[in-house]
Amino acid sequence: MPRSLEFWIGYGSTYSYLSVMRVDASAERCRVPLVWKPFNIRALMIEKGLPTGPFLPRPDKLAYMWRDLERRAQRRGLPYARPAQYPVDSQATVRVALLAAQEGWCSEFSRRVFHMNFVESRPIGALGNLETALRDVGRDPAATIRRAHEADIEAALAAQTRTAIEIGVFGAPTFRVGDELFWGDDRLEDALEWATNGCLTPSERA
Amino acid sequence: MPRSLEFWIGYGSTYSYLSVMRVDASAERCRVPLVWKPFNIRALMIEKGLPTGPFLPRPDKLAYMWRDLERRAQRRGLPYARPAQYPVDSQATVRVALLAAQEGWCSEFSRRVFHMNFVESRPIGALGNLETALRDVGRDPAATIRRAHEADIEAALAAQTRTAIEIGVFGAPTFRVGDELFWGDDRLEDALEWATNGCLTPSERA
Repeated sequence: MPRSLEFWIGYGSTYSYLSVMRVDASAERCRVPLVWKPFNIRALMIEKGLPTGPFLPRPDKLAYMWRDLERRAQRRGLPYARPAQYPVDSQATVRVALLAAQEGWCSEFSRRVFHMNFVESRPIGALGNLETALRDVGRDPAATIRRAHEADIEAALAAQTRTAIEIGVFGAPTFRVGDELFWGDDRLEDALEWATNGCLTPSERA
Repeated sequence: MPRSLEFWIGYGSTYSYLSVMRVDASAERCRVPLVWKPFNIRALMIEKGLPTGPFLPRPDKLAYMWRDLERRAQRRGLPYARPAQYPVDSQATVRVALLAAQEGWCSEFSRRVFHMNFVESRPIGALGNLETALRDVGRDPAATIRRAHEADIEAALAAQTRTAIEIGVFGAPTFRVGDELFWGDDRLEDALEWATNGCLTPSERA
């Protein structure tokens, strides 16, 4: 019986695009139960005293990240257009995502939001885009956004972000199986193998 | 005709262990000419105003890096024992490596040095270890270290480090094919495919 895979996801994260679009199919193929764990990556960065746009102070790394992301999308056969805006304001989106995770529609919602940001050049956080994404996945935009800002969701998001910090999450996407953290889209396969076998076997040619 | 692969390597780098041990065999399998490019990662970090032990200000990332490195070594079937020391003083080692690259024995030398650091708990930079590594690869330690500190090698290392900065290298290991940079051991396969085909084809399941 495989253990479950936690998917710690921040909505301002760039590389998360790669994972959001494949994590369901990959987990299902391995028969690993998947748990979406939206957290407030901005609050985590602030608490750690780090820049909230992690690449901003490093123009060389920022330039590399965009090129690498484009190549990785190509590698995975994913459509990609460089987002119009970076960083994005994902504060309302993550609240909706937390509500969605509680109600079981986080995956569909996240794919829609990331597709808008990374294919359609409609930034997360720009006026009207969250509403469009919600309508597209069959939710009432106004009612859902209102609900996502109520005190219990606010508290649940703060608690989930606190847990992220406590278990050692420092960026997104992060996968977790038991106590093992796997950071970055590149590590999804390792995380799935860990969930299945509890270890990594030498499977790549050295 | 594949293009050549430049391997930009810093001797204080941890993840470089994974690449040093496999880059020759991987490039040979793909018939891609390999060029070792040792550079002074410490000088690069200082010029960019960054900490010279890149993980030191981030204990969460440092802890993750050690665990991840151990797991990746396991995945590649590589022996691994957590180094006794971090960061290490690699200033003499990189000078010898530059000389070795000029003379065609950089690969053998690097494998020996990284094996000592990541398997035998004999840190790069600790007294006598560079001499041992040189002796083990059939070189005269005293004469080689003296030669590696002469002005022309010093100047060549400074020039190579300047080039690294100019082409956008910001960490090690970095692979380069034409103008394309690939950062991290995880990207070796992409770099080799780029050297062979000039592009990445959708080859991984999304």
